[in-house]
Amino acid sequence: MPYLDLALLEARSRELLPEPVYDYYAGGAETETTMREATEAWRAWRLRPRVLRGITTAQLGTELLGAPVRAPIGIAPWAYQAMAHPDGELATARAAAATGALMTVSTSANNSLEEVAAAAPGSPQWFQLYRLHSERHTDDLARRAGDAGYRALVLTVDVPVLGRRRRDMEHDFVHRAGVRMANRPPEGEEPTLDGLATATWTFDEIARFGELSGLPVVVKGVLRGDDAVSCVQAGAAAVWVTTHGGRQADPAVSSAYALPEVVDAVGDDVKVYVDGGIRSGSDALTALALGADAVFLGRPIAWGLTTGGERGVAGVLDGLTEELAHAMVMCGLPDVRSVPRDTVTPAR
Amino acid sequence: MPYLDLALLEARSRELLPEPVYDYYAGGAETETTMREATEAWRAWRLRPRVLRGITTAQLGTELLGAPVRAPIGIAPWAYQAMAHPDGELATARAAAATGALMTVSTSANNSLEEVAAAAPGSPQWFQLYRLHSERHTDDLARRAGDAGYRALVLTVDVPVLGRRRRDMEHDFVHRAGVRMANRPPEGEEPTLDGLATATWTFDEIARFGELSGLPVVVKGVLRGDDAVSCVQAGAAAVWVTTHGGRQADPAVSSAYALPEVVDAVGDDVKVYVDGGIRSGSDALTALALGADAVFLGRPIAWGLTTGGERGVAGVLDGLTEELAHAMVMCGLPDVRSVPRDTVTPAR
Amino acid sequence: MPYLDLALLEARSRELLPEPVYDYYAGGAETETTMREATEAWRAWRLRPRVLRGITTAQLGTELLGAPVRAPIGIAPWAYQAMAHPDGELATARAAAATGALMTVSTSANNSLEEVAAAAPGSPQWFQLYRLHSERHTDDLARRAGDAGYRALVLTVDVPVLGRRRRDMEHDFVHRAGVRMANRPPEGEEPTLDGLATATWTFDEIARFGELSGLPVVVKGVLRGDDAVSCVQAGAAAVWVTTHGGRQADPAVSSAYALPEVVDAVGDDVKVYVDGGIRSGSDALTALALGADAVFLGRPIAWGLTTGGERGVAGVLDGLTEELAHAMVMCGLPDVRSVPRDTVTPAR
Amino acid sequence: MPYLDLALLEARSRELLPEPVYDYYAGGAETETTMREATEAWRAWRLRPRVLRGITTAQLGTELLGAPVRAPIGIAPWAYQAMAHPDGELATARAAAATGALMTVSTSANNSLEEVAAAAPGSPQWFQLYRLHSERHTDDLARRAGDAGYRALVLTVDVPVLGRRRRDMEHDFVHRAGVRMANRPPEGEEPTLDGLATATWTFDEIARFGELSGLPVVVKGVLRGDDAVSCVQAGAAAVWVTTHGGRQADPAVSSAYALPEVVDAVGDDVKVYVDGGIRSGSDALTALALGADAVFLGRPIAWGLTTGGERGVAGVLDGLTEELAHAMVMCGLPDVRSVPRDTVTPAR
Ligand SMILES: Cc1cc2nc3c(=O)[nH]c(=O)nc-3n(C[C@H](O)[C@H](O)[C@H](O)COP(=O)(O)O)c2cc1C
Ligand SMILES: Cc1cc2nc3c(=O)[nH]c(=O)nc-3n(C[C@H](O)[C@H](O)[C@H](O)COP(=O)(O)O)c2cc1C
Ligand SMILES: Cc1cc2nc3c(=O)[nH]c(=O)nc-3n(C[C@H](O)[C@H](O)[C@H](O)COP(=O)(O)O)c2cc1C
Ligand SMILES: Cc1cc2nc3c(=O)[nH]c(=O)nc-3n(C[C@H](O)[C@H](O)[C@H](O)COP(=O)(O)O)c2cc1C
Repeated sequence: MPYLDLALLEARSRELLPEPVYDYYAGGAETETTMREATEAWRAWRLRPRVLRGITTAQLGTELLGAPVRAPIGIAPWAYQAMAHPDGELATARAAAATGALMTVSTSANNSLEEVAAAAPGSPQWFQLYRLHSERHTDDLARRAGDAGYRALVLTVDVPVLGRRRRDMEHDFVHRAGVRMANRPPEGEEPTLDGLATATWTFDEIARFGELSGLPVVVKGVLRGDDAVSCVQAGAAAVWVTTHGGRQADPAVSSAYALPEVVDAVGDDVKVYVDGGIRSGSDALTALALGADAVFLGRPIAWGLTTGGERGVAGVLDGLTEELAHAMVMCGLPDVRSVPRDTVTPAR
Repeated sequence: MPYLDLALLEARSRELLPEPVYDYYAGGAETETTMREATEAWRAWRLRPRVLRGITTAQLGTELLGAPVRAPIGIAPWAYQAMAHPDGELATARAAAATGALMTVSTSANNSLEEVAAAAPGSPQWFQLYRLHSERHTDDLARRAGDAGYRALVLTVDVPVLGRRRRDMEHDFVHRAGVRMANRPPEGEEPTLDGLATATWTFDEIARFGELSGLPVVVKGVLRGDDAVSCVQAGAAAVWVTTHGGRQADPAVSSAYALPEVVDAVGDDVKVYVDGGIRSGSDALTALALGADAVFLGRPIAWGLTTGGERGVAGVLDGLTEELAHAMVMCGLPDVRSVPRDTVTPAR
Repeated sequence: MPYLDLALLEARSRELLPEPVYDYYAGGAETETTMREATEAWRAWRLRPRVLRGITTAQLGTELLGAPVRAPIGIAPWAYQAMAHPDGELATARAAAATGALMTVSTSANNSLEEVAAAAPGSPQWFQLYRLHSERHTDDLARRAGDAGYRALVLTVDVPVLGRRRRDMEHDFVHRAGVRMANRPPEGEEPTLDGLATATWTFDEIARFGELSGLPVVVKGVLRGDDAVSCVQAGAAAVWVTTHGGRQADPAVSSAYALPEVVDAVGDDVKVYVDGGIRSGSDALTALALGADAVFLGRPIAWGLTTGGERGVAGVLDGLTEELAHAMVMCGLPDVRSVPRDTVTPAR
Repeated sequence: MPYLDLALLEARSRELLPEPVYDYYAGGAETETTMREATEAWRAWRLRPRVLRGITTAQLGTELLGAPVRAPIGIAPWAYQAMAHPDGELATARAAAATGALMTVSTSANNSLEEVAAAAPGSPQWFQLYRLHSERHTDDLARRAGDAGYRALVLTVDVPVLGRRRRDMEHDFVHRAGVRMANRPPEGEEPTLDGLATATWTFDEIARFGELSGLPVVVKGVLRGDDAVSCVQAGAAAVWVTTHGGRQADPAVSSAYALPEVVDAVGDDVKVYVDGGIRSGSDALTALALGADAVFLGRPIAWGLTTGGERGVAGVLDGLTEELAHAMVMCGLPDVRSVPRDTVTPAR
């Protein structure tokens, strides 16, 4: 299982990548407290295995807003994948298709949204939207995502301004020369100086972008029950609990902390996704037990792509999926679509 | 008290054993969180000694499903004892007989169940059953256990599949050449490739194996109150709370955490045994206070056998028994058969 | 943002200052437990960001007892500033004026209260009163503060006797030769031998000093709800929750612990200020969420003054203010004057 | 304050003493968990200072069962003081007399109880009783204590058997040649082989020894509320909460944990004393706040005696007393005889 040891993949990536790139991928905001606590927070729970249920294998297949996937483990949107591997997002897309996983494509991709879509026809993809440039250009991206066959629009709302990422400040990290910013505005229309900023967005944007794109809208960046309810009332198809990999507010609550609150607030009918620090099958199972319908991976995919391109990404997805299946059987659970809450209990 | 310093015995064993064997004995599953927490979890409790009770000695004798033992400290089943010492299970059986302790013999023993039984006639033994091979062969083992004079059948149910033990994966640990797998199926009937697997077992197996063997059934591997109740309802004579030494599900709750829940669920009339990380007399006393009727030892016996053969195992049993007696007198407790719950309180 | 890395500023200050001076600034009482816990205690809380509120900038301006300030971040009184920089309190006063911050001037200043007032005409200042000398001289200082245009009198009440500061004892720290004790009694009237001592003060002092000075009185040194209520009943305009930078009682509760208790006790109409261990924008935001109307800085100002004089102090104030603004926008909060309690939750 | 830095005194003692002696004084039972937690447990509380109470000095004088003492800080009984200093218990007794402190004299003293009494005529002393030898000799000691003018008999009940002190086992610690066991039985009557043992004692012993000695009886070794009540019902004048310096049951609850339970159980009219890990004035104040009427010191006295003889012991007592006075004034408390419970709160 060569792509299963994520710590090793990260160590190798650190060797392979220029320091500013590694630090851009690996780092978080301010004191990196939220980033550091992400994995710890899942591991603050313990499994309570069931026995004698006659469970020989677990059924992992599920749907993400109607799209069938092999397992409830998706690819979170992350920027500038060409810095990790020459094929960038295209390799990731092919790996997702090959392993039956859903990929979320970032606005800040190095390949245009149409190119990524074309790299894996038939495989379900979501497009993640930022207000990276002018309002007009942002609206345009939403429309193009609908046209290109994406299955949902993911509004990332936790970047009113960019987080204070000290490592990037130290490196004066700027986009590496020669890497194409594929979803940039057309020539002549300059990107705003302050870059990334969704500060102007309000709950009304949910319905508006839904109409523009013709797609269900997933709101990514929710950490509170009250916000989750407002999103749903404003028309969101699902909410995505995340701290943005600990790259925005710091020290913010961890996803594992916020998840049960959000699940309780929105009730059973609303889909809740989660990411942040998922590094093992039991982390994923813990998230499902706490009420997530699926988990997403950020950095593990980056390390897979860096060290092995398409094969690396597929290896990471296969590895985590196998671990999840193992944990399910260990706990006597037949189906990922109904993991009881009492499968986990707080560690003491 | 040369066999009392268990850390020292383990250190010596590490020197004496080939690394893959030491790691097989010492290691656990995945991040080894559950393994590491086993002892810590007992030590998350503090003793509340009673004074002026006129207690000069403690009565340690008790019964395990009708069999009288010198103290409520038994030997847990563990595999491949011939790797620790040429006499393997036979040495352990003799030490148990010599010290009045009950031994549980593993399916994966290097001596056949009949040989181990013959090594210590009259001394009470339990046989631990795995579905290691074909169903037919497994049924056969249950029958043979009854015939050979074992006093109970211990169904190990926490191995639907083998735990992911990283150390063993690294060493590509396989059974050492030249060591006899005594309870293997007869020539011609091949062991299944995936080896150890009880995934197909259900609660119905409890009564079925009880009938096959004619023995009371102890279900080993229970970590939940609801499961414990189901076992009893399905005919179990007792339940054995364990994480399999942290070698299966990880990160699972520790035995010390699960024990009170199981005790409360099954009530006073059902016997509850426990193992995992018991390393001192006060660990044992804590388990008794939390409701266990007896504790069992895994690795301490392995280190005793490795370093001193039969004498080593007896030394470990004597040492722990003496420590338990000491702790009982210190706490003003006359009898192991009734250790009040309020003898311990959570550490702060 | 050169003055934002407070740890670096402190490290540089340590190099620049004679060891006894650095230790006087940096040290605390007894085991320094309270000092060490000050920052940790703020960081025992986590932010719960709000999204999609359309918040592009945060309004930071507020009033401190009627005096408008740019942000709710003031300068706590600290002694002997001329040891950090030749201009001493005058540099600090000018930096406060330049950045729209309020400065609290200590009785133990190296420049007389009139001189400090004159250094920054128009900029709001508070005068902090000790019973450093005779009662007569202390009364005189209160009167002079009123005459010199100070906007409030801050009674420091947590120094009945000086804390046992081990570092100072080791260095036999005494006021450095050549540094002027500007608010000392006139020649002929000797300072009392035991120096600093407010042990004789009672709640009645609040009204008495208010009348003497003609100023609103802020009681600095409150760590209990009951004491806070007594202060308000005795005529205090506001209470200031502090452990004196961990330089007095030890191990005392931290400010972050005492703050909610005090806020709850005095109710919404009474202003509550807090200091101790505030080192980042999110620390400040946490304090506001817990009910503080403003936070004050001690050592960060000392390190700014040591390393950069007036510019250094201004840099520290600018840096923290910018961080607070950033944290507010991240949390979707428009106005420092109303930060909801549920902006934070205990870390787990 | 040369005898105030207890860590330094201990370090010096370690240099001065033969290793087996140092280890006998410094060590505890089994894993030394209880010993290690003793001081930590006091420091798991934080002070909540009161302000503006006009408290310039604190009144420390109190009574111990009718005997006036300068402060509620006494000397716990500890054995073999001649190993620390040639004058042994006589030096300690003189220091107690000189500082107005009460000394408890151990059965295992190197000077006879009459000699120690004679060393400090008029100064209040208590005699601590063990069943070190035959019952007849033990009764005799009780009678002699009454005759010699001791003010109370302290029954140590937490030594049914000697604790398992690993350091002493390693050194095979035996009483050093040439040191007189002054309270041994007369020639001809041999000490029992197992030495120290109060296992045969019951609650009835309290009244019996009270009658034999004609003295009020303090029961030392109580860690439970129910036991404390039984002691009082059986005629005890007071109970003494202690873990015997972590030298007996391990891991037992700490004194700081047991104290409030005992205080609540016996009510206001019964005196409760406590020892174990008291190392500073704020530790002592915490104990008083939790309901103790006085604290006692073990090892700090040993280090004082080792490093400075009579002067050393007096120095330690003076130092702690001064620290307690300081902490009282810091907390606005006028009198040790009434320290409110809400002076402390659990650390977070
Ligand atoms: C290098 C990097 C770039 C990211 N870029 C984006 C992005 O463009 N859009 C977005 O919504 N989230 C982005 N994220 C956040 C991820 O979608 C995801 O929330 C996070 O990485 C999950 O945590 P994990 O990395 O611990 O798995 C990025 C994360 C990383 C590490
Ligand atoms: C090397 C080793 C082999 C084991 N083999 C078996 C086995 O064959 N059957 C079984 O039911 N449990 C087996 N166990 C689990 C033990 O019965 C027991 O649950 C565990 O060792 C108790 O924890 P301890 O080692 O901390 O005392 C094994 C444990 C070890 C360490
Ligand atoms: C070197 C130094 C001198 C101080 N002098 C005074 C003083 O003269 N008067 C006063 O009320 N507080 C004084 N304080 C306490 C501060 O006003 C303030 O409460 C504390 O420094 C805040 O904690 P911080 O240093 O962690 O920000 C002093 C603090 C320090 C560090
Ligand atoms: C070296 C040593 C000898 C002791 N001998 C006795 C003794 O003879 N009788 C007794 O009741 N307690 C004895 N004790 C326990 C003390 O009375 C006391 O409970 C304990 O030392 C308090 O803890 P501290 O050492 O942390 O202050 C002894 C303790 C020590 C450290």
